[in-house]
Amino acid sequence: MADPRWLSPAEQSAWRAHLAAHRLLTHRLDRELQEHGLSFNDYEILVNLSESPERRMRMSDLADATIQSRSRLSHQISRMEAAGLVTRENCEDDRRGTFAVLTGEGWDTIQRVAPDHVAGVRRHFIDLLTPAQVAELEEIYTPVIAKLQGK
Amino acid sequence: MADPRWLSPAEQSAWRAHLAAHRLLTHRLDRELQEHGLSFNDYEILVNLSESPERRMRMSDLADATIQSRSRLSHQISRMEAAGLVTRENCEDDRRGTFAVLTGEGWDTIQRVAPDHVAGVRRHFIDLLTPAQVAELEEIYTPVIAKLQGK
Repeated sequence: MADPRWLSPAEQSAWRAHLAAHRLLTHRLDRELQEHGLSFNDYEILVNLSESPERRMRMSDLADATIQSRSRLSHQISRMEAAGLVTRENCEDDRRGTFAVLTGEGWDTIQRVAPDHVAGVRRHFIDLLTPAQVAELEEIYTPVIAKLQGK
Repeated sequence: MADPRWLSPAEQSAWRAHLAAHRLLTHRLDRELQEHGLSFNDYEILVNLSESPERRMRMSDLADATIQSRSRLSHQISRMEAAGLVTRENCEDDRRGTFAVLTGEGWDTIQRVAPDHVAGVRRHFIDLLTPAQVAELEEIYTPVIAKLQGK
């Protein structure tokens, strides 16, 4: 077998910087959201539902949108259901499964929490970037995402 | 209170691309490592220990290096200890705590698994980037990391 193509120092720095930045960012944002009684995962689910027609999504679509397994999402939705943020609904006409639906309380929660959360995303990340770097990030990650999703 | 400064469409795309790319990447790499009986977290710990003098690190330093809580790391190390990859050692001269030490089996494991893992990091991420983009990623994330670490 050929020698492995190890990462160059620059490549290793980039890869480790991506990992460290992601972990530090999501830890911090998670901690800030906990002051509102939410986790970072809760917040992402609330955002997805709040942006969907009728504030509802098929569970399988929500799992795809938040990039997690169906079983992990199901546990997550159970916790959020117990907290009154979402409900599950079965669609009679549609055997393809269950929907997660944002409750009134879930909607109020995302409205109340979003300004603080967005301020955190700005303070810890976006506002440290130039507009060119913002554009570059999307350009870097779009092909990575497409390839991993098999597109 | 002033209106929140919502993210612009470009900022939102960049932020969501970062999150999606990270999640897809680590899921894929985790799945590939599972063929070798390791998780992505296991791998990171093995790398850190293998690069340290005497292949050992104080638990608190290892928690900092892998950006996780001391209690989460402790559970993780217990699982890896059961798998024979690391051991815990108390230093008699040093009351500041316990060390995690790579075993011979842990060293053999990282040597065996690293070529495959690096090939995955290249295939799914690094080889899709130009050298300029590699440099740009480090430039983007370094201030983000420094600020979150309070440096």
